[in-house]
Amino acid sequence: MSTTEVRDEPSHANGILPPNLDLPYPDSPSEITANLLKLTELAPNPRARIVFKSLISKLHEFISQTNITTEEWRSGIEFLVGLNEASAPRGRQLNLLSDVFGMTALVDRLNNPRIGNATESSLLGPFFTEDAPDLLFGESIASEGIGENMFVEGRVLTTGGEPIPGAVIDTWETDGTGLYDMQHAERTVPDYRGRLRTDGEGKYGYRAIVPVSYAIPGDGPVCRLLQSLGRHNVRPNHLHVVIHAPGFHKLVTALYPDGDPYLSSDVVHGVKKSLVVKLTEIDDEAEARKRGFQKGTKFKLLNYDFVLVTEDEWAGARRT
Amino acid sequence: MSTTEVRDEPSHANGILPPNLDLPYPDSPSEITANLLKLTELAPNPRARIVFKSLISKLHEFISQTNITTEEWRSGIEFLVGLNEASAPRGRQLNLLSDVFGMTALVDRLNNPRIGNATESSLLGPFFTEDAPDLLFGESIASEGIGENMFVEGRVLTTGGEPIPGAVIDTWETDGTGLYDMQHAERTVPDYRGRLRTDGEGKYGYRAIVPVSYAIPGDGPVCRLLQSLGRHNVRPNHLHVVIHAPGFHKLVTALYPDGDPYLSSDVVHGVKKSLVVKLTEIDDEAEARKRGFQKGTKFKLLNYDFVLVTEDEWAGARRT
Repeated sequence: MSTTEVRDEPSHANGILPPNLDLPYPDSPSEITANLLKLTELAPNPRARIVFKSLISKLHEFISQTNITTEEWRSGIEFLVGLNEASAPRGRQLNLLSDVFGMTALVDRLNNPRIGNATESSLLGPFFTEDAPDLLFGESIASEGIGENMFVEGRVLTTGGEPIPGAVIDTWETDGTGLYDMQHAERTVPDYRGRLRTDGEGKYGYRAIVPVSYAIPGDGPVCRLLQSLGRHNVRPNHLHVVIHAPGFHKLVTALYPDGDPYLSSDVVHGVKKSLVVKLTEIDDEAEARKRGFQKGTKFKLLNYDFVLVTEDEWAGARRT
Repeated sequence: MSTTEVRDEPSHANGILPPNLDLPYPDSPSEITANLLKLTELAPNPRARIVFKSLISKLHEFISQTNITTEEWRSGIEFLVGLNEASAPRGRQLNLLSDVFGMTALVDRLNNPRIGNATESSLLGPFFTEDAPDLLFGESIASEGIGENMFVEGRVLTTGGEPIPGAVIDTWETDGTGLYDMQHAERTVPDYRGRLRTDGEGKYGYRAIVPVSYAIPGDGPVCRLLQSLGRHNVRPNHLHVVIHAPGFHKLVTALYPDGDPYLSSDVVHGVKKSLVVKLTEIDDEAEARKRGFQKGTKFKLLNYDFVLVTEDEWAGARRT
């Protein structure tokens, strides 16, 4: 019989008494919402009251505004259940959903407001790892070097223009085929990623390749949803950078080389105007050799000064 | 190395070209939302455009209005991932989340508007099964009869007051301990549920027990969330009824005996005023015997006439 198939664990009443509130039997859509908001006032945590009252209001507004059908609601829940089942690694599809609907970008924007001339933030994405090799000034993050030569150089500075020596730069990118190291099944060591420190003048420099645009990982439910919505699933090419320095707010950002056709419609909405950078083509054997390139003489130069805010500057700017 | 642990399947670009739209690099929260809404206009399906534009707007309003922190957003996603992992049977926790935040009730209310004197709908819930035994007039849905004697009787009528003969009534309830049959691990046959047909005068009648209030199934993340929000997790006692009759819109409803302390704060917001019913206590041996009760002489009488709408009446009333 089906009763065993759908068996539910019995639960226990949590012991909270029925509330002493005026809760009319909800005979209209607006009364359902009003009752929920009254009940949410019971939450002991004041932040939870704010967050859940807003969430409930907005979700109810969505349901009422679209006059969602029973079948649509069911298929929405089924989509979310399927999202998690299709999700490998864990939680990936749900994060992608947050990404492709601009919610991750919006949270990033609110939590990392622009502060003067400081470098703006961008999305961390799923491809950061802790095991990037430590490199010296001028070394290559791309051991294979498959792709177009690129040299990245510049300084890490305070908002006042002072150099920050000893800042730790984590940087990673796709190889020339648009894949990160971890997306190669046979890959056993990190590649196209590295960790460097700025010198006494706040300078850094490393060899890399020009990154390549790519489709977001996993041909799963989120990609199928994008297709049904007539949207491409591509990120413009970019170079990830995370910078730590004692006393400064950690900078999580990325640089987006100009000219990529997917720049303004980045599927995860990570691009900010100030992070779009110009690569300069250098065709000079001496310049190439000075920067350690073995193959060819041409390379793209990416010169960028990162400006970090102090923890105090960051805390003061976060809208509350 | 961690790269293998977090390996992502490479994906493929879906071939949709970058849109020919004016999409400024989003430098403000409102520009992120505006870009998303423009992109959603690309959806070929007009209903998808309406639904996703509303959903995106409302979720972005939620994020901006609460100025959600990065940590809060991450913990929200983690909550949703955990919901699915904790969900047995499949999808249960996500459905419960929809239930306890009144979204299921709101969808029900919008899709099943009140129509004249017709019986209002209520939530189906997770405990319906297809295998209820067929019963004759006056038989008991509760084979064990553990609980307080109840007799349910009445008619199934059109909105014009005409009887509907041969209507099929599916009905189910908790036993006297507040559990449905499927929640007993050792239970192998359906119980506290049955299927009946109205007679030539549209009448029905069956023995049952007075149902008992209970905590929603599964001591999972949704129950923990309710507790943290200061809300109880209990449904008031109720009798589920689904009625099918050819030409009539299927009625999915429940009757809620008056007096339950959890009535107005039903954790899943299923109660409607018109579905709250009065049980009459009858203490008369002849009346009890006439209705087939073996034990004791007292019983509660629940008299209720269900009024069905035709498919045409239903379609005309659904707000579009």
